[in-house]
Amino acid sequence: MKNNLDNIIEFLKGSNDFVVTSHISPDGDNLGSTLGMYYSLKNLGKNVYYVLDDNSPQNLTFLVENVEILKSSEFNMKDYNIVALDCGDKNRICLSDEIRDNAKKIICIDHHASNDYYGDLNYIDIDASSTCELVYNLLVRYRETEGIDLINETIATALYTGLATDTGNFAYSSTHPSSFEMAKELLLKGAKRDMIIQKVFQSNPYSYYKLLGEALNTLDIVDGKVASICVTKEMLKRYTISFNDVDGVTSYTRDIEGVEVGILLKEKKENEVKVSLRSKNYVDVSQIAQQFNGGGHVRAAGCTIYDSVENAKQKVLEAVLKTI
Amino acid sequence: MKNNLDNIIEFLKGSNDFVVTSHISPDGDNLGSTLGMYYSLKNLGKNVYYVLDDNSPQNLTFLVENVEILKSSEFNMKDYNIVALDCGDKNRICLSDEIRDNAKKIICIDHHASNDYYGDLNYIDIDASSTCELVYNLLVRYRETEGIDLINETIATALYTGLATDTGNFAYSSTHPSSFEMAKELLLKGAKRDMIIQKVFQSNPYSYYKLLGEALNTLDIVDGKVASICVTKEMLKRYTISFNDVDGVTSYTRDIEGVEVGILLKEKKENEVKVSLRSKNYVDVSQIAQQFNGGGHVRAAGCTIYDSVENAKQKVLEAVLKTI
Repeated sequence: MKNNLDNIIEFLKGSNDFVVTSHISPDGDNLGSTLGMYYSLKNLGKNVYYVLDDNSPQNLTFLVENVEILKSSEFNMKDYNIVALDCGDKNRICLSDEIRDNAKKIICIDHHASNDYYGDLNYIDIDASSTCELVYNLLVRYRETEGIDLINETIATALYTGLATDTGNFAYSSTHPSSFEMAKELLLKGAKRDMIIQKVFQSNPYSYYKLLGEALNTLDIVDGKVASICVTKEMLKRYTISFNDVDGVTSYTRDIEGVEVGILLKEKKENEVKVSLRSKNYVDVSQIAQQFNGGGHVRAAGCTIYDSVENAKQKVLEAVLKTI
Repeated sequence: MKNNLDNIIEFLKGSNDFVVTSHISPDGDNLGSTLGMYYSLKNLGKNVYYVLDDNSPQNLTFLVENVEILKSSEFNMKDYNIVALDCGDKNRICLSDEIRDNAKKIICIDHHASNDYYGDLNYIDIDASSTCELVYNLLVRYRETEGIDLINETIATALYTGLATDTGNFAYSSTHPSSFEMAKELLLKGAKRDMIIQKVFQSNPYSYYKLLGEALNTLDIVDGKVASICVTKEMLKRYTISFNDVDGVTSYTRDIEGVEVGILLKEKKENEVKVSLRSKNYVDVSQIAQQFNGGGHVRAAGCTIYDSVENAKQKVLEAVLKTI
């Protein structure tokens, strides 16, 4: 069934046991939206388990400090429902196939363009700034229909984090008037905005900037319109920066004057390169990512190429240059 | 007279000839608020002259492309009133003393803590995110009392620019719920947000990032709490980046985890180093700057040291380490 907030609310009200989860390589919107749902269900007196077979990036650990996140191997409930947040692909849900396939129902809340409505109940809005905005909408609807306001300081902080990270702190074109309305209410509800800004945007380790300096040496520009940066596994090792902690480097490609498409090539292991794509005005980078079995949004997408960094760069550049 | 929006509205309604102006070294809030007032008075059928004896920074010229800005020497009206925007000090109003002193009345709209209410009519709010937010409040009050909505796409774009630049695009703690309400309405009114973001924040030249890469090689940290970066005149020359265009590099020092004070040392010429200081939570960097005959704010200050880059660094570090 497609979007129906009231059906989802009815389902959440009528069930007791939930697993909340999201996609691999957690980011702010992933963690924020999952936590927003986790705390909301807890506050409604439900049994809720947060299951995720991956670790949070260092700058977001403040969000999950007091939350028990289980690995799939630690979870052994029966008769549960899954709420999958910010997860555009059923196969990227970050828990075991067994847990996924044994769920009574899957409720999918997401804003990825590639989402194929894989849930039994779905709330998908590809124009939304973030999945956090969808969770916020659900909570506002809950307040309207049930007369109970679930948005407290903790939930406001979680949702503000995802809104801020998925919009580049209100810079991306996916920041709609509704996003500002949400930001306003979350601030009024006590979202710890100053802490979020400091933790998320102003707490990179010293070694991160040393790595950035080295990565900027690889900054390359083609036709003045396509810029790329490479981060190799040797760089990550040299500066002891984890694979999930360098995605911010992508912005140094896109933010160059005249550049339409920015590319970050991040080597996970030999012959496995994660590619992040950003565009400014007219190139649909999700279509480029799809050519390499990836996905995402029109202005921000990603894929994995199983080849050397240099070959991956050539392959992506070739695909990008066809769109310029 | 202190704050009274209705008195200012009555005055604007009852007068016909205006000069709008702001402070020297125009920034986004300066230009945005002055343009917001300029267009509003124009739309009310007033005679309005924009007088400013300075040039706009390159990344903000898009705002004033279609506006005739006069130098003081080109202005020869009599019987006019001045609306001074975003200008905390009567002596920093960016037009001739003669024009300033011959005005019938000065209306001052500003958010600087140092403002001494020098206007005949004043609207000062030091907690406001920006002077643009004050102009917005004035236009909202005008709509409420007069039933006329002056906020069109052009005014929305001007005011959004100042709101975005003076809040670090909604990152600073001066971003209040009211700022988000304003952002929401301005977007609905057609503020060209994507253009603003691109022009203001995403248009660094390619060579800027190459310089940044080299500058990051000089990144140094002491006791985990004080970080510094050096930009030499040779680097500026090599990448043809102008002295005034690298101040953004300072944030790479402050934004390191655990760092309280960040220092940028920028070599202007031999034995002349401009020092920018930023602090995160508790060090008053204006006091450090004052030791070297500089000044500024608690969290952002600057000074010039007449010595080599290396010696300047040692001198500043010594002063900073006493405060940590």
